[in-house]
Amino acid sequence: MSKVKVAAFSVSLDGYGAGLDQSIENPLGKRGEELHEWIFPTKMFQKMYDKGEGTEGVDNDFADRSFENLGAWILGRNMFGPIRGPWLNDEWKGWWGENPPYHVPVFVLTHHAREPLSMKGGTVFHFVTEGIESALEKARTAANGKDIRIGGGASTIRQFLQAGYIDEMHLAFSPVFLGSGEHVFAGIDLPKLGFTETQTVYGKGATHVILRKNQ
Amino acid sequence: MSKVKVAAFSVSLDGYGAGLDQSIENPLGKRGEELHEWIFPTKMFQKMYDKGEGTEGVDNDFADRSFENLGAWILGRNMFGPIRGPWLNDEWKGWWGENPPYHVPVFVLTHHAREPLSMKGGTVFHFVTEGIESALEKARTAANGKDIRIGGGASTIRQFLQAGYIDEMHLAFSPVFLGSGEHVFAGIDLPKLGFTETQTVYGKGATHVILRKNQ
Repeated sequence: MSKVKVAAFSVSLDGYGAGLDQSIENPLGKRGEELHEWIFPTKMFQKMYDKGEGTEGVDNDFADRSFENLGAWILGRNMFGPIRGPWLNDEWKGWWGENPPYHVPVFVLTHHAREPLSMKGGTVFHFVTEGIESALEKARTAANGKDIRIGGGASTIRQFLQAGYIDEMHLAFSPVFLGSGEHVFAGIDLPKLGFTETQTVYGKGATHVILRKNQ
Repeated sequence: MSKVKVAAFSVSLDGYGAGLDQSIENPLGKRGEELHEWIFPTKMFQKMYDKGEGTEGVDNDFADRSFENLGAWILGRNMFGPIRGPWLNDEWKGWWGENPPYHVPVFVLTHHAREPLSMKGGTVFHFVTEGIESALEKARTAANGKDIRIGGGASTIRQFLQAGYIDEMHLAFSPVFLGSGEHVFAGIDLPKLGFTETQTVYGKGATHVILRKNQ
């Protein structure tokens, strides 16, 4: 049975999952990149972008694990791109170039229909206009027993949490304070939603926490 | 010149500085004690309460440091006790027994006047009804060049932060999610208030972060 999970999702110590004012220059919003500094030097990340060798250790272990056994992804539209409103054309193909790191079907939540988009390496972006339940149903079919990762952003994760669909989360708390941005926990009561923290590991660049829903 | 500082202030990963429903049985609110589990085993804490030996290391270093060079404290009323409204009598003398761990003047913010209260070991509780500026002025005089520690709770720290009076903070992030309680950061933009995180150290029980105001 597919698990629905959040993995390697970076959060600032004051609770933000992205900065303000996302744009082409700042895909993660202002100062949003600082949230992810724990993952950039890892072997997993360096390999993904065909760069150098990268570091091993706790941060790399969690980065690796975040891509294990995935059969489908679900992304909020802002995680796919900076465009708001109707798609003016099909030029925008995501932040990741011709060969995105997903290599499985990716379901993008949007209010505006668009034809599926097949990329190199097996990633296919499907645009879902009927809401999160529909995206989850399509992702389950596509995942074929493997896990479904809710990639983000913060608002998408909040919606799936509040609807009770998430089984497991790995959050990476980065030692930064953004002061403003997309808040992950405001109004989200994780214990009340059934989550227990089952593991905390201090990496070099982040505190990694695994939360699981009580069965 | 006295620094005004917050030290060893424990925060959950979802941003709470205390649980809900403070009472005689739960001075820190529901599940609030879990925030402080990093400090209980330390040598500093064990010594303070005349118990066993206690642990050394990062958590103990930060616990020790939080009591260094203090000339006065400021506490919100709820940190002094669970009583709300007018003082019915002088029976309540704080949570800490006859010999509280302060050993210097402590200024308690309240809307209800009360005579100063002298305890064993040099702690004197002064009750300040004229607001945070007045408390700070009195604390500066009492501290006589040493530092002033804003003890908490969350709402008192928020008031001092927003008024721009705090120079330095040591926050201890405990790997727990409370889900509800007294939120420390909601509406508080630390970078905008001039703070930069200058140090992050991973202890056994908490992630310790030092923030300093830019001069």
